[in-house]
Amino acid sequence: MDKPLIGIVMGSDSDVERLKGAFDVLKELEVPFEVTIASAHRTPKDVANYAKTANDRGIKVIIAAAGLSAALPGVLAAHTTLPVIGLPLEVGPLKGMDALLAMAQMPPGIPVATVGIGQAVNAALLAVQILSLQDSSCSKKTTQYREKASKKVSTARDTLTELPKAPPEAFLG
Amino acid sequence: MDKPLIGIVMGSDSDVERLKGAFDVLKELEVPFEVTIASAHRTPKDVANYAKTANDRGIKVIIAAAGLSAALPGVLAAHTTLPVIGLPLEVGPLKGMDALLAMAQMPPGIPVATVGIGQAVNAALLAVQILSLQDSSCSKKTTQYREKASKKVSTARDTLTELPKAPPEAFLG
Amino acid sequence: MDKPLIGIVMGSDSDVERLKGAFDVLKELEVPFEVTIASAHRTPKDVANYAKTANDRGIKVIIAAAGLSAALPGVLAAHTTLPVIGLPLEVGPLKGMDALLAMAQMPPGIPVATVGIGQAVNAALLAVQILSLQDSSCSKKTTQYREKASKKVSTARDTLTELPKAPPEAFLG
Amino acid sequence: MDKPLIGIVMGSDSDVERLKGAFDVLKELEVPFEVTIASAHRTPKDVANYAKTANDRGIKVIIAAAGLSAALPGVLAAHTTLPVIGLPLEVGPLKGMDALLAMAQMPPGIPVATVGIGQAVNAALLAVQILSLQDSSCSKKTTQYREKASKKVSTARDTLTELPKAPPEAFLG
Amino acid sequence: MDKPLIGIVMGSDSDVERLKGAFDVLKELEVPFEVTIASAHRTPKDVANYAKTANDRGIKVIIAAAGLSAALPGVLAAHTTLPVIGLPLEVGPLKGMDALLAMAQMPPGIPVATVGIGQAVNAALLAVQILSLQDSSCSKKTTQYREKASKKVSTARDTLTELPKAPPEAFLG
Amino acid sequence: MDKPLIGIVMGSDSDVERLKGAFDVLKELEVPFEVTIASAHRTPKDVANYAKTANDRGIKVIIAAAGLSAALPGVLAAHTTLPVIGLPLEVGPLKGMDALLAMAQMPPGIPVATVGIGQAVNAALLAVQILSLQDSSCSKKTTQYREKASKKVSTARDTLTELPKAPPEAFLG
Amino acid sequence: MDKPLIGIVMGSDSDVERLKGAFDVLKELEVPFEVTIASAHRTPKDVANYAKTANDRGIKVIIAAAGLSAALPGVLAAHTTLPVIGLPLEVGPLKGMDALLAMAQMPPGIPVATVGIGQAVNAALLAVQILSLQDSSCSKKTTQYREKASKKVSTARDTLTELPKAPPEAFLG
Amino acid sequence: MDKPLIGIVMGSDSDVERLKGAFDVLKELEVPFEVTIASAHRTPKDVANYAKTANDRGIKVIIAAAGLSAALPGVLAAHTTLPVIGLPLEVGPLKGMDALLAMAQMPPGIPVATVGIGQAVNAALLAVQILSLQDSSCSKKTTQYREKASKKVSTARDTLTELPKAPPEAFLG
Repeated sequence: MDKPLIGIVMGSDSDVERLKGAFDVLKELEVPFEVTIASAHRTPKDVANYAKTANDRGIKVIIAAAGLSAALPGVLAAHTTLPVIGLPLEVGPLKGMDALLAMAQMPPGIPVATVGIGQAVNAALLAVQILSLQDSSCSKKTTQYREKASKKVSTARDTLTELPKAPPEAFLG
Repeated sequence: MDKPLIGIVMGSDSDVERLKGAFDVLKELEVPFEVTIASAHRTPKDVANYAKTANDRGIKVIIAAAGLSAALPGVLAAHTTLPVIGLPLEVGPLKGMDALLAMAQMPPGIPVATVGIGQAVNAALLAVQILSLQDSSCSKKTTQYREKASKKVSTARDTLTELPKAPPEAFLG
Repeated sequence: MDKPLIGIVMGSDSDVERLKGAFDVLKELEVPFEVTIASAHRTPKDVANYAKTANDRGIKVIIAAAGLSAALPGVLAAHTTLPVIGLPLEVGPLKGMDALLAMAQMPPGIPVATVGIGQAVNAALLAVQILSLQDSSCSKKTTQYREKASKKVSTARDTLTELPKAPPEAFLG
Repeated sequence: MDKPLIGIVMGSDSDVERLKGAFDVLKELEVPFEVTIASAHRTPKDVANYAKTANDRGIKVIIAAAGLSAALPGVLAAHTTLPVIGLPLEVGPLKGMDALLAMAQMPPGIPVATVGIGQAVNAALLAVQILSLQDSSCSKKTTQYREKASKKVSTARDTLTELPKAPPEAFLG
Repeated sequence: MDKPLIGIVMGSDSDVERLKGAFDVLKELEVPFEVTIASAHRTPKDVANYAKTANDRGIKVIIAAAGLSAALPGVLAAHTTLPVIGLPLEVGPLKGMDALLAMAQMPPGIPVATVGIGQAVNAALLAVQILSLQDSSCSKKTTQYREKASKKVSTARDTLTELPKAPPEAFLG
Repeated sequence: MDKPLIGIVMGSDSDVERLKGAFDVLKELEVPFEVTIASAHRTPKDVANYAKTANDRGIKVIIAAAGLSAALPGVLAAHTTLPVIGLPLEVGPLKGMDALLAMAQMPPGIPVATVGIGQAVNAALLAVQILSLQDSSCSKKTTQYREKASKKVSTARDTLTELPKAPPEAFLG
Repeated sequence: MDKPLIGIVMGSDSDVERLKGAFDVLKELEVPFEVTIASAHRTPKDVANYAKTANDRGIKVIIAAAGLSAALPGVLAAHTTLPVIGLPLEVGPLKGMDALLAMAQMPPGIPVATVGIGQAVNAALLAVQILSLQDSSCSKKTTQYREKASKKVSTARDTLTELPKAPPEAFLG
Repeated sequence: MDKPLIGIVMGSDSDVERLKGAFDVLKELEVPFEVTIASAHRTPKDVANYAKTANDRGIKVIIAAAGLSAALPGVLAAHTTLPVIGLPLEVGPLKGMDALLAMAQMPPGIPVATVGIGQAVNAALLAVQILSLQDSSCSKKTTQYREKASKKVSTARDTLTELPKAPPEAFLG
């Protein structure tokens, strides 16, 4: 695999399964990435160092996944000017609502690009869209991915069974 | 079946099961409807076209079901003056609370008639009540449906077992 | 004014100001309406009677505005098969969130078409869109109203000052 | 059993299981009650009649259990001056939060005595405490019930195993 | 004034203004009450003693008003079998939502009869309705109070101005 | 000013003031941008066209600001593969909580990079950080902006008055 | 075991399992503790006495675990000047959100040191950190516990499999 | 003033006013403290250093005040084993609810002792109660402070005017 452009950080190995959607998208789109585990609260120095060295190592976008008070993306963002995507995880009794607020409600000065709770696929796609700014192939890949997604919707529509279907002319502009 | 009067749009074929209550009501009341799949975000052009052609094709009311940020009914409503009923689905960690807000909290100018989270039966009944404005048989059907529902309540009351029941005179006005 | 087609019910005269947006839209679109005050909890019999007589008196859609536990639209809906639009008002410490839930979360069988908190304009527009089913002039009026609203957006865009504006070609399809 | 003093109303026979805690308490305390099924939206007239006749039939307190928009206790309360206890049920995606707000947030004039979501036992106990105003044996029964509950706590404390226990002197005032 | 039947407890003298609605109702209905200040956290012994002596002093119902974590009604209820009405106050950043939950969500065994946030009038009316169990004049007073409230609604309806009014026959059953 | 790289879209001219923080940051950092007004619901075609033409016109990142059900960024994102930043505005009774959910909770396939409610400055900074991928001067500008922000914090610390201050050695690593 | 320094109070023996994380931490760190069961509402006198005698019996910190309206830590805190840690339990339909608010939102004068919903481990660690003020071995134990936790994170990182890993130099400062 | 035992950290000088209650309590109780400004996101190194040096400089407890995503107390706690008290501030559209969750919902391993939103007085009192473990004068001061607070409640009770007061015997145990 090529030199990774996207760095994915999660707080615990129990999150690997929750990020599967992101890994799959990046593999499918052939965008090189790296994965690591670091905790804003248990290994704060590692988090700071990861953020500080990322740019020099060729990383262009960071995805940080966390649950609960979810300080990880904010702390990474505090140590780098690379865009940091926050992926709130559906963990604990509040189902990720706490993590969503912790990521989105950053104070002025250090933004985190927050996606939906548990939306690992969207975190990956957003990273690829951002990479498009320097690599036009990423834009093409996103377009192709979307075409496949659109296609899947129309196919599902065409194969609806046991229900009266809307006719094709309903979709002619 | 007659020409459909109600158009039901959902974002994915995984929602078919969630809408079963609506299909059953419309079949029971013999109100012709059509079903389709289109996504505000993945097939936006299809959504716009569906809304634009609906009136000319004889559709009188649209039901749009979606979960999460649930833009579907609002986007449909932006392209037609037909009444659009929004059915928020119980999908994802927030259990449809996000979808309910996304549908109800439309900005001034483009209303969505929102029903409860996962209340497919109510979406269908509301559509039939709206149809009553041009087809008095629909009003009759609604009345009959309600009489059956009332009856079901009184029957349940009468068949309560192993508990001391309120006497019939409790319900004499 | 012609015979009213829309009945607007509110729980208290203190709500008149909150419904001004609805009155203005209906006057502008020249759709005849009537207004009354009745309370689901303080004058329940009046509410039931209003709902029961509405259809025979020529009313086609009911708009019910209420705050707090907001039972009004549900109780009206229980006594008529006319479509009932629920307008949750921004009243009390919870800012209408209680009223929104009370209206939208109706149990299966008796739907309320809920619009956004305090969105009186949308309640009125939805009523007019429903009336279109029997009066095509209403559809035309809605279209014209929307064209004016669209126009207002484009005018606002054209008259943006002191900021670098997007060029006209940004909007050419 | 004696003439019922407490009337318990629920919207559907599917709620019987959810009210078991209330039935058990009332049986244990030997306070006569009656149970019925009536729906604020599907059988509104029955609900009104039940409330209107309750006092004359000897009922002293009404318990109304409902989920979702939960208008039942409020509508009962509108038709009687008997105290009405609202028991919000844990039903639907919002887990009874909607029902709690619908019951507690009654507008001024018609109170509902709301207990916690799904707290059927508390609804029954509150009814018995209210009955104490006219029947001092109820006060005694409540006291006994509480003594048993206190006892259960101390017994649980005494039988804690495999953990270092606080010594008895910790509880000497 | 007669011997007080209702005891009103609040945590601070700053709450006097918030309870004005309750005082006014009780004065209007001529139901004797007493008022005091005691804090579940700052004067816990006073709270316990108040609850323990209340019954012997002739108090029949306690109203406890508090904001924030609002333990007051629960702690009172733990020391008496008199019915305790909880009135959550709109205090602090969460606008009484915290107080509402703290009062309503009591664990099984010790109920609090919770009314809406800031609904002092309803707390008072509920107390009077409960008193009706032993004093039929209270029932009569409640009925009269409600008739006045109903009347106020109809008067407001009749005096609606500058808006097309629903005709009187709309309210004939 | 140079050719704009960032396109800022808002739904109404009443939002200009709410976005001032973003305009100021971009002017200060000398990053060329353009501003326009378009509404997902009132001018849906303009929104679609803006998104479709943006890339060819040289726009690299889009910022979309909206309140309430806030479909704007999602609809823009559906028509372009450029990164779209969603800025939820503090508008209406729910204070932007509805807009935050509508933006963040996008379904899989079409991400929106959401920042905090009303955090216009963060929307602008995130856009500049994303631009850094193709223009290293943006990275430098972000670094300088942050150094100024850090400096402001230390200056505020040094100028604390009338309070016992932590000594300088508290900050020596 | 030595004389207990930490007193753990819970409302019911059904909470023992929920507190396992706390017991395990304290055993692992060899900090002596005692456990008991007492209820703010069912055994209020025991709760008051426990708090009043705790200091004299050598207890230095109290951990109080409760769900729902969760008055336990506040009531304990009202009767002692020892620090009281509140552990909200994930109990009931609101998943501990009610308990979190009931504990954190204490009125001025009587603080409760609240930890996260269901975070028994954190309640125990906080107690040990507080004990460090008088026993430096506790500080050392906390440091060792954290080193183990950090180590676990790095080990998880090193043993990530089937995914492209970030290289060791990513963590060199 | 003596060597500070409590370190108070806030993210911005605009928070000084919000912390006034804490400063006043500590001055009144003559507990030496220091104040500083540091931001988890804008000056992360300062925050880390402050936490790391605090213990050696004689600080025994840290109070960290922040609004919005409020990472400050968690980041401080990650770098010290001193107890860290989190004070969520009522800042921004969510009124501190976001900050409360960000502080309380810390992942296992690094606790934050969270107090109520905007409860600066409680943050200070909790710090003094913790200090009591090593300085018994603090315990005495807390007791005196509480006696004054209790006194204030009884005085307020005694000086209630224009309302029927509960008699003194209501408070005799």
